[in-house]
Amino acid sequence: MFTNRTAMSGRHFLQIPGPTNVPDSILRAINAPTIDHRGPEFAALTLDILDKLPRVFQTQSPVIIFPASGTGAWEAALVNCLSPADKILMCETGHFAKGWGRLANKIQLNAEIIPTDWRQGADPNAIKTRLEKDGDHLIKAVCVVHNETSTGVVSDIKAIRAVINQTNHPALLMVDTISSLASLDYRHDEWGVDVTVAGSQKGLMLPPGLSFNAISAKALQASKQSTLPNAYWDWDDILASNKEGQFPYTPSTNLLYGLKTALDMLLEEGLENVFSRHLRLAEAARCAVRAWGLEILCQNADRYSNSLTAVLVPDGHDADQLRKIILDNFNMSLGNGLGQLSGKVFRIGHLGDLNELSLIGTLGGVEMGLKLAQIPHKRGGAQAAIDFLAAS
Amino acid sequence: MFTNRTAMSGRHFLQIPGPTNVPDSILRAINAPTIDHRGPEFAALTLDILDKLPRVFQTQSPVIIFPASGTGAWEAALVNCLSPADKILMCETGHFAKGWGRLANKIQLNAEIIPTDWRQGADPNAIKTRLEKDGDHLIKAVCVVHNETSTGVVSDIKAIRAVINQTNHPALLMVDTISSLASLDYRHDEWGVDVTVAGSQKGLMLPPGLSFNAISAKALQASKQSTLPNAYWDWDDILASNKEGQFPYTPSTNLLYGLKTALDMLLEEGLENVFSRHLRLAEAARCAVRAWGLEILCQNADRYSNSLTAVLVPDGHDADQLRKIILDNFNMSLGNGLGQLSGKVFRIGHLGDLNELSLIGTLGGVEMGLKLAQIPHKRGGAQAAIDFLAAS
Repeated sequence: MFTNRTAMSGRHFLQIPGPTNVPDSILRAINAPTIDHRGPEFAALTLDILDKLPRVFQTQSPVIIFPASGTGAWEAALVNCLSPADKILMCETGHFAKGWGRLANKIQLNAEIIPTDWRQGADPNAIKTRLEKDGDHLIKAVCVVHNETSTGVVSDIKAIRAVINQTNHPALLMVDTISSLASLDYRHDEWGVDVTVAGSQKGLMLPPGLSFNAISAKALQASKQSTLPNAYWDWDDILASNKEGQFPYTPSTNLLYGLKTALDMLLEEGLENVFSRHLRLAEAARCAVRAWGLEILCQNADRYSNSLTAVLVPDGHDADQLRKIILDNFNMSLGNGLGQLSGKVFRIGHLGDLNELSLIGTLGGVEMGLKLAQIPHKRGGAQAAIDFLAAS
Repeated sequence: MFTNRTAMSGRHFLQIPGPTNVPDSILRAINAPTIDHRGPEFAALTLDILDKLPRVFQTQSPVIIFPASGTGAWEAALVNCLSPADKILMCETGHFAKGWGRLANKIQLNAEIIPTDWRQGADPNAIKTRLEKDGDHLIKAVCVVHNETSTGVVSDIKAIRAVINQTNHPALLMVDTISSLASLDYRHDEWGVDVTVAGSQKGLMLPPGLSFNAISAKALQASKQSTLPNAYWDWDDILASNKEGQFPYTPSTNLLYGLKTALDMLLEEGLENVFSRHLRLAEAARCAVRAWGLEILCQNADRYSNSLTAVLVPDGHDADQLRKIILDNFNMSLGNGLGQLSGKVFRIGHLGDLNELSLIGTLGGVEMGLKLAQIPHKRGGAQAAIDFLAAS
């Protein structure tokens, strides 16, 4: 809407792995006039949201809503539970996991990083080995990104919980679900997660600006002992105000209208159906990549992301040049390679409010772009996706 | 929109002192589809905003935009510039000044409070006296709320800067302009303010969800020595990214659409005209209060707020009961008394996107409510406002 690009006909294809396409119904909800956040209508809105929101996290525990983007919820998880110089164990599964570690060190925590080659999920055995060596229980939290947005690789949270239990280690388990919540099956309670970090702009189909902490009883208990300074992120104040449908400071009223609508949409579709839809569209996207003869970054089929697919371009070719060609010619945004993957991959977002036909259009745009960019590939990727979708 | 109240005809009158009424043009801007925040369109949007935004603060210095509400910008001002246990001097001019002090103590600062009776502005002489006693310069910042939203009293920032200069004290001057920016004349540069704190949901006419720090060169320098842990609020990362029209983490894209529109509207009207309009409407509201024979909370006419008017109800009457009657009968929200003023005052917001006729309607609603609530008053307040507006 702000450059000549808007002169291009038709709607922009926003196929980055979030922020995702916001449904018109949610945009319209957000469009309503702002109301008094201390009034009775607002309290009813909040209580309705707080009733429904935990279902999306598959938890009975409270979920905290911050007027902030996802990075804020990262910080909130840490500052509520931990104290200065606390050691935490993190798995660098990609750019965002690395960013969470950088943030932890900035707020005076001591993040120990288990590296990966960014093509696998977090290794439960490596976590187990490290925890076994930590007889003094100096490690206060294990932090894992469920779906690494920079790589399209999923980590097995259930397995990580299992190794923590096997070692009888008291560390908290904190999980970033920013690009998995409401897209991939994620179970805060069943998997024994202590703090789940999430954001509004991916599976929840909202613009960015809200983020979340789902918190276990153990995490809440840890927050009573924590000494890292915090105020904006303080769970206690928010939980106390939430009882009356209020917030301790001005909430992001209009995004909350959108959140109510999003929750109603997700619960009407049914979480199982939401997860199945994401699996089906992701499989179709992977069919296309295979048909092009290109390589999916994720090396383990068990760990494929259903939110996005990161695709390697052959050596000597530039993924960012491909993305630019696609944006300029076909009005579609794809995700770029981040950090050490810069220029080496492009990422196809297939999460949130998406259907078969939009995905097929997306894949058609990638295929035409590959040709224009003269990147070696076989034609027929979009067709492979169509064949898969028609047959399944 | 969420209860039966929406069955009432006509538009709701949101006359709290913020969040304020959001113009339809801004709601429509926010309503646009979310775009790729790493793409060229977004960078152009950011650069346009960063060019115009400082003008509203009357500064040549950079203004930081946070995806957070105003309380976040309070925290950001402190954590960027200060270190644990630093002493700061605050003036408790009302509920929000008190809240800023509470936040400061929560993040391990040492807030020394100069009290007031909540009916005056901050006293420059009291600040001067305290700074003169601080020969060791232990006080690292003086924090003042420009327009205290809970009382409708303005503090004289220029005079406070003058006494800091007279004492040759190096303390930073931090000013909360959450309910004054783009409503009252406010001059970050000319008044020598080091950090100005602001929010989106008042004079900027946006929904809540964005907040701001305008920062002086001295504040930026102080941030290099600060040791309070912070990451989300870190100015350096944001300033570095802003150079390319980017943010270090996901920004609140749709609210930024609205901010662009709001800045265009304010600059088209002209800041001087915006301030004059607020003065005129505020004077009309005060004419009404005087005609009712009720008492304005602010005791010094030089310190009247042009954003809101807090009105005392006579002893033995309940301002919240009055507010409820007005909401139920006339579909209008007024601000409540906060903290020690609970039940004792109601607050008429007259800031942001407001014109004469809406203000007259507002005052008519208050007058009818006073009658229904059987609060002793003289009729003719709305008429007095009309007479004032017609004559001026």
